[in-house]
Amino acid sequence: MKSQRELHTFSSGIILETGEALSSFDLMVDTYGELNNDKSNAILVCHAFSGSHHAAGSSDDGKSGWWDELIGPNKAIDTNKFFVVSPNNLGSCFGSTGPISICPETGEVYGKAFPAISVLDWVNSQEMLLSKLGINSWACVLGGSLGGMQALQWAITFPDKIQRAGIIAAAAKASSQNIALNEVSRESIRKDVNFHEGDYLKNDTFPKSGLKAARMLAHITYLSEENMNKRFGRKIQDVESRVDDLVDYEVENYLQYKGEKFSQVFDANTYILMTRAMDDFDPAKKFDNELKDALKKVTAKLLIVGFKSDWLFPPERGKEIQLAAMQSGISSSYLELEGQQGHDSFLFGNERYQKNIEAFLRS
Amino acid sequence: MKSQRELHTFSSGIILETGEALSSFDLMVDTYGELNNDKSNAILVCHAFSGSHHAAGSSDDGKSGWWDELIGPNKAIDTNKFFVVSPNNLGSCFGSTGPISICPETGEVYGKAFPAISVLDWVNSQEMLLSKLGINSWACVLGGSLGGMQALQWAITFPDKIQRAGIIAAAAKASSQNIALNEVSRESIRKDVNFHEGDYLKNDTFPKSGLKAARMLAHITYLSEENMNKRFGRKIQDVESRVDDLVDYEVENYLQYKGEKFSQVFDANTYILMTRAMDDFDPAKKFDNELKDALKKVTAKLLIVGFKSDWLFPPERGKEIQLAAMQSGISSSYLELEGQQGHDSFLFGNERYQKNIEAFLRS
Repeated sequence: MKSQRELHTFSSGIILETGEALSSFDLMVDTYGELNNDKSNAILVCHAFSGSHHAAGSSDDGKSGWWDELIGPNKAIDTNKFFVVSPNNLGSCFGSTGPISICPETGEVYGKAFPAISVLDWVNSQEMLLSKLGINSWACVLGGSLGGMQALQWAITFPDKIQRAGIIAAAAKASSQNIALNEVSRESIRKDVNFHEGDYLKNDTFPKSGLKAARMLAHITYLSEENMNKRFGRKIQDVESRVDDLVDYEVENYLQYKGEKFSQVFDANTYILMTRAMDDFDPAKKFDNELKDALKKVTAKLLIVGFKSDWLFPPERGKEIQLAAMQSGISSSYLELEGQQGHDSFLFGNERYQKNIEAFLRS
Repeated sequence: MKSQRELHTFSSGIILETGEALSSFDLMVDTYGELNNDKSNAILVCHAFSGSHHAAGSSDDGKSGWWDELIGPNKAIDTNKFFVVSPNNLGSCFGSTGPISICPETGEVYGKAFPAISVLDWVNSQEMLLSKLGINSWACVLGGSLGGMQALQWAITFPDKIQRAGIIAAAAKASSQNIALNEVSRESIRKDVNFHEGDYLKNDTFPKSGLKAARMLAHITYLSEENMNKRFGRKIQDVESRVDDLVDYEVENYLQYKGEKFSQVFDANTYILMTRAMDDFDPAKKFDNELKDALKKVTAKLLIVGFKSDWLFPPERGKEIQLAAMQSGISSSYLELEGQQGHDSFLFGNERYQKNIEAFLRS
């Protein structure tokens, strides 16, 4: 598989949904496969909130891309046929401009001064990327969770520049419970004494504990209760492999381990920014809260996928989008899959899931 | 309603399930109604993990008891007929001996030195209370959530001293997800810089932020997603009544407010102790994980109540107890109620719920 990583600089900057502006910004972008002659085979994959541009293949340290089970030669998103474009989102912390970047105006790290970013801002920045790549339209935009929200926004905002949108394990808006869970995570981060109201880097410190607790909570929402019971149940962690002596159960050890690892690679301000973008996503808002009206100008074919074991964005959320699509008379299919891994099911390939994605891209 | 509050001292102490001992302990106990001549009308109500002895009536500051909708004259638990005994649990922080108490041996506050307490320890201490009150057996032991776990343990441990057990919104053991959620709460508390490994009082401080975040998370698990959507939805909090300027949505403001209030009245070590007791509760464990075998010697009639909107201990958990009861051939009824408030539904009176409790106590 041909694969390339490139930092794209947009020196004309961007005006954000809030009205604030970035005078210049970078997007770190992976591509997999090759663009064909008529530039008709480009697919944009959008990552979920802690994801990155590294969607496929393995990095030097052996880490697989977040959608490696679906993207590659002869996989559901076949890189022998498609040119897959995978940017790290604006505001994230894996190479694209975000709170850990240097602000060109001040010469200092942005920190808390980095502006709020919305799903629409991501879509706008990705449209600038599309243009920079000299492509007229995406054969498909797709992603899971917050990535699915971007796919939906793409279909609404740029009907002429997208042929298909794959909206997977997502919702047209966060529920009250979704917002509440995100707020607890944000509270953990903000109340870490090392947070310094977001200016921790200027204080040579990092709110690691808060970020760890935030991720531990979020991680629970990505798994299904049934899957956790099967995998961990009430098993006691053997003493030798306990991360610390306060741990009794395997599930505690697992969460501690996952939270710790995450807190070593992610940024706290980015965590807050990303969860805010998720909470605030609501494309129907400008249409008197009528999603069907928001979808009226959509020309892309939609594929909406929900997973039965997902309790963060359960299948009902996908069905709401499908219902609105039917009411607005646009082309849309809804697929409900069993899923074994709760919300995280969108990351894992299984036959029916892969066949449907493949057929959708062929359609 | 005749009501009395009394501190009972047990100077002979107690040996705990871990083998550790308390040389002496106190239980703060409320009673409502009057004990009849043949002492056959005593009901023990067991509180959930953040509850107290104050189950009914109103305190001087106007605060209602946690089960005031069910306990009182002519209510489901009728104080004209029954003598209701409501202790604050050992290890709690509302007057009974717990981590904020002074250890008689050292003359210092217990803090982290307070031993782990189990549901069985509570039941044993409540049996000592029964004996001290000169009563032979409870007409009923009942409670919701962790209180329901105590009722179940009572039926198993002291078959001769309990006529009925009301096990409401409870489970015979915590799920992997339950444990995981509790662990995140504990992590928030432990990583608060003011926690000092549990010896915060000796350091003249308190891990308020950690306790607040813990409660915010727990609070979400007490409500149903549907109820949250109805009550808060995605409504923006009006600016004047925001608890701070980081709040956008009503649901955030509500959680912030609730968490803040809780962190002013509850103890952090108690929070950890109570969640540990909940995680570790598993009466079937000593019976090769066969709950039906644990129930073999039960003579009390059981009433098991589950609420459809409860996702912390969903109806399936109650059904598991009912199934085991049927397999062991004991007398047990299972009742599933709609419930509007998720797990918290057990706190609120509604006609069908109250009638069933009343009929059960009459049976």
